[in-house]
Amino acid sequence: MNTYSVKAYGTESKDADLQELNIERREPTSKDVEIEILYCGVCHSDLHTARNDWGGTMYPSVPGHEIVGKITRVGSDVTKFKVGDLAGVGCIVDSCGTCESCKQDLEQYCQTGFVGTYNGKDKHLGGHTFGGYSQKVVVDADHVLKVPENLDLAAVAPLLCAGITTWSPLKHWNVGSDSKVAVVGLGGLGHMAIKLAKGLGAEVTLFSRTPEKSDDAKKLGADHVVISTDEEQMKSVAGKFDLIIDTVPYDHDVNPYISTLNINGTLVLVGFIGKMDEALFTPPMILGRRSVAGSVIGGIAETQEMLDFCGENNIVSEIEMINMQDINEAYERMLKSDVRYRFVIDMKSLS
Amino acid sequence: MNTYSVKAYGTESKDADLQELNIERREPTSKDVEIEILYCGVCHSDLHTARNDWGGTMYPSVPGHEIVGKITRVGSDVTKFKVGDLAGVGCIVDSCGTCESCKQDLEQYCQTGFVGTYNGKDKHLGGHTFGGYSQKVVVDADHVLKVPENLDLAAVAPLLCAGITTWSPLKHWNVGSDSKVAVVGLGGLGHMAIKLAKGLGAEVTLFSRTPEKSDDAKKLGADHVVISTDEEQMKSVAGKFDLIIDTVPYDHDVNPYISTLNINGTLVLVGFIGKMDEALFTPPMILGRRSVAGSVIGGIAETQEMLDFCGENNIVSEIEMINMQDINEAYERMLKSDVRYRFVIDMKSLS
Repeated sequence: MNTYSVKAYGTESKDADLQELNIERREPTSKDVEIEILYCGVCHSDLHTARNDWGGTMYPSVPGHEIVGKITRVGSDVTKFKVGDLAGVGCIVDSCGTCESCKQDLEQYCQTGFVGTYNGKDKHLGGHTFGGYSQKVVVDADHVLKVPENLDLAAVAPLLCAGITTWSPLKHWNVGSDSKVAVVGLGGLGHMAIKLAKGLGAEVTLFSRTPEKSDDAKKLGADHVVISTDEEQMKSVAGKFDLIIDTVPYDHDVNPYISTLNINGTLVLVGFIGKMDEALFTPPMILGRRSVAGSVIGGIAETQEMLDFCGENNIVSEIEMINMQDINEAYERMLKSDVRYRFVIDMKSLS
Repeated sequence: MNTYSVKAYGTESKDADLQELNIERREPTSKDVEIEILYCGVCHSDLHTARNDWGGTMYPSVPGHEIVGKITRVGSDVTKFKVGDLAGVGCIVDSCGTCESCKQDLEQYCQTGFVGTYNGKDKHLGGHTFGGYSQKVVVDADHVLKVPENLDLAAVAPLLCAGITTWSPLKHWNVGSDSKVAVVGLGGLGHMAIKLAKGLGAEVTLFSRTPEKSDDAKKLGADHVVISTDEEQMKSVAGKFDLIIDTVPYDHDVNPYISTLNINGTLVLVGFIGKMDEALFTPPMILGRRSVAGSVIGGIAETQEMLDFCGENNIVSEIEMINMQDINEAYERMLKSDVRYRFVIDMKSLS
């Protein structure tokens, strides 16, 4: 298969800083589109993968799965895009298309495993996939999203992961204008959960440990802020929420939140992937048919639905723009939660 | 309020055996029915309450919430029953009727707390309610069930708790002929879960630690038995089940079962009320939108639906009949799981 070289930013080992390197992209097949990447959001998963925090990172590693740009080439079988269209790529660049999950537009749960935008198994070239910290990307058109023209394009990028990760549970658990939704944690995911839940008409509460975040949360659309370390405040919302989106990316005790769920309510974990330290206390679950669930990103059709919704409702991420060369510093700041609320790389800086 | 005395069996303290005693029943109000109790099932909750295992037991304690009998008196406002009708009483004898839960026929989640058939707060006489280990009971007719005439009446009694406790999650999670259901534990609840899931047309698997239970499980309707301590057998059902009804009444690790859930599957705890020792491992939950939930008994309308279904499908509990005087020995045998699968008291023995 013919390839061509593009500039990218990545790392050769878990201990090395990211730096400029060249990677190969395939020549687009009849089903592919080529995208000139204009902006790429910076997700915590990028950092974890670059540093092999989860194990399994293949090097060189080029992160980035919040990609927006312009279509520059279109395969002969592709009717969905034309050159010049805006386009987005999220966490998924391929899936089997035939399993029960894929048939239900749940590519994120593809039973043979979806192909991640980076560190996935590249079906075309062998080896592994390279992400959006690069000039161009070539992707199967069925896994590429249309991007609304009316939004700030840089601020759309984080919708492709942070947006869909919170949108998918909001939709799966039927959030609407009658719903009371709480969000745990105000970071990249949390701030999108507030905006999207509010966009769907829900009454939205932020759980936070830090009172300093209250003003920000309310500006983002939260109706209420509950300080989770304040027992009285926690008691005041007992039995209140239909859905809690828990975006906290580290181990934490979910039991205090379970008691704030209404009958039939669900707490859905989208942030922490690992072994929890604190075990479940089952009485509030049994005596109120409450659930603890997990959810990961979303399917392609659902991602498109979310982007269209954001276009119609003028919803984008809050971002801080950086140059590609600032990425190592940005990672350090992310580890200190020093970002409001998502770094986005201006990919012009790579050229 | 006028009362009258009936014979019952109960205990005056947590350390004392149950013995014969007299309790007061109210004269039926215009909304009540009086039931001559013919049979009463013996639930683990009876034992836990008699012995104050959960705290909060009020003495004298008269357990029993799997009650079947005949209507002997009918209040002037009651149109649902006439003297001589078969009737059943489960775990709930009253509820507020006005909260969001009650308005949705979810009296089991009544937000002011339903009135338990025993050890509940007696709204009429003050003090606490006395259960079915007695000759008669007087209950608000809206909380009394119609019992199909075609079933073995003694074997119907356990449906009022063990039956509805497993029926409610089967219905809530939409089990039907396309469903794959697993049941953890083969006791009073577990054997009803198998029968009811099978009755609904599901493919049913029993998880058990003891191979000796396989034959029984299959006789009860299970299509498959998986020995949960056998890693190979567990792997063979990875990703299989839409719903797991976990009836195990003591602390146990649910993580091995979560991996046997299909995408969007739910493990619902109906047996163990307390603090689990083993914490959740979240990756299978997040990467497959799997849930852990709880559920308790069921509402009145749902209990009627279950009884009607059992009548139509000839489903009853497997029982061992005992006399009232055998109850203390029966409790000891229950603690050793030496019952297949529910003790039922022949209430004639009390007279």
